[in-house]
Amino acid sequence: MEFSSKLLENAVNEVAMLPGIGKRTAMRLVLHLLKQPSEQTILLTEALTKMRNEIIYCQNCHNISDHTICEICNNPTRDHSIVCVVEDVRDVMAIENTRMYKGIYHVLGGKISPIEGISPSQLNITSLVEKVQEQKVSEIIFALSSTMEGDTTNFYIFKQIKAFNINVSTIARGISVGDELEYADEVTLGRSLLHRIPFESSIKSM
Amino acid sequence: MEFSSKLLENAVNEVAMLPGIGKRTAMRLVLHLLKQPSEQTILLTEALTKMRNEIIYCQNCHNISDHTICEICNNPTRDHSIVCVVEDVRDVMAIENTRMYKGIYHVLGGKISPIEGISPSQLNITSLVEKVQEQKVSEIIFALSSTMEGDTTNFYIFKQIKAFNINVSTIARGISVGDELEYADEVTLGRSLLHRIPFESSIKSM
Ligand SMILES: [Zn+2]
Ligand SMILES: [Zn+2]
Repeated sequence: MEFSSKLLENAVNEVAMLPGIGKRTAMRLVLHLLKQPSEQTILLTEALTKMRNEIIYCQNCHNISDHTICEICNNPTRDHSIVCVVEDVRDVMAIENTRMYKGIYHVLGGKISPIEGISPSQLNITSLVEKVQEQKVSEIIFALSSTMEGDTTNFYIFKQIKAFNINVSTIARGISVGDELEYADEVTLGRSLLHRIPFESSIKSM
Repeated sequence: MEFSSKLLENAVNEVAMLPGIGKRTAMRLVLHLLKQPSEQTILLTEALTKMRNEIIYCQNCHNISDHTICEICNNPTRDHSIVCVVEDVRDVMAIENTRMYKGIYHVLGGKISPIEGISPSQLNITSLVEKVQEQKVSEIIFALSSTMEGDTTNFYIFKQIKAFNINVSTIARGISVGDELEYADEVTLGRSLLHRIPFESSIKSM
C-alpha cells in the first residue's frame, strides 16, 4: 500500500500492530476516527494511556485492580482459605458472574507454553506456592482452560504443593475439553465450580 | 460484564466504540497492550492523536494529505483535465497501485445514502461541479462501487454536469456488480480504467 499521508500511514501501522487486526481493518478503523468528531479520538487515546500508566495489579491475587489490594481480596465476607487459580482477569470476571463462588483468586497471568516461550518464571506461581507454604490456604481450585498448556500448568503447580496436604481440585468438566473458560455460559461454569473434583483423581483419567 | 478496574473498563468501552469491535475483542486488545511494554501504547495513541489533529484534506481533490495540495494534484506530469471520481482514500490507493492512471482524482468522501442519512450536501460534489463549470475538465471518470448508492451518486452528479458537454465515463465492469472497488485485484481494476465507457451508454443498460 502506498499512502498519500505519512500521518495516516503511521496511524494505520500502529493499529495494525494489535493482534488479529490486519492492515485493511486498521485502515477502516482509522478512517472511522477521522469521520467522527475529534473528541472520540481524544477519549480513546486518553483511556488507553491512563489505563497503561496507572493500572495496578493486586499485591495478593495479581488481578487487575485500581488499588494495591483488590476489592475481592479486601472483602472480609469472602473465604480467604479457598483460592481459585485462573489465567487472567477475564476468567475472574466470568466466575464472578456466576455468583456461586465465595473464595478468592490467584491470577497466574498466563499458562506455561513452550511454544509461545512462556516459562513458569514468567507466571505468578512462586507467590501461590508461598501462600500454601505459609498455611494460609485450605483448598486450591484449578480453573485453567483444559488445554495441554492448562494441564501442564496445573501439574507443574500441583507438584510443588502436594506435600502440604491441602485439598487440590479442578473445576468439573461440564465445559467441553479445549474450550476457553471465558466463553462458557454462566450456568455451566457455576456448576463446574460446585462439582469440582480432587485434582489427583482428575489426572488419573488423563 | 463487571470489571475489577474502572481504568480497564473505560479503556475497553472506548475501544468497543470502534465499528466491528465488540466488547470481547476490545478486552483482548486492551489486555494485549497491558502485556506489551508501555512504549507500544504510547506509539499507538500518539499516532492516532497526531493523525486526528494534523491531517489535511487536499484543497483540490479532497484526498487525505499531509499538505494543502496533495502530491498527485501537485504533480505537473499528471493530466489535470481527466478527473476520476472516487469515494475515499482507499480507492485512490487502489487505483494508484495499478499504475495505469495518469489523471487526477476527486474524492467525494462517501456515497449518497438515504438509509445511512448521507445527503449530497455532505459530500464533495459542489466543488466537482465547479471544476467542470470553470472548464478545467475534459473528462470525468466515475469509479464508485457499483452498488445502488454508487449508481445514485453517479447519476446525481451526471445530471449537473451533462450540459457542459464533456466526456463522462464509468470504469468498465470487469469488477463484479456489488463488489467494493478496494478489494478488486490490480489487473481487473487497471483494465476497468482502460475500458471505461461513456456514462450515457452505461445507464441505458440499467
Ligand atoms: Zn486481589
Ligand atoms: Zn489533491
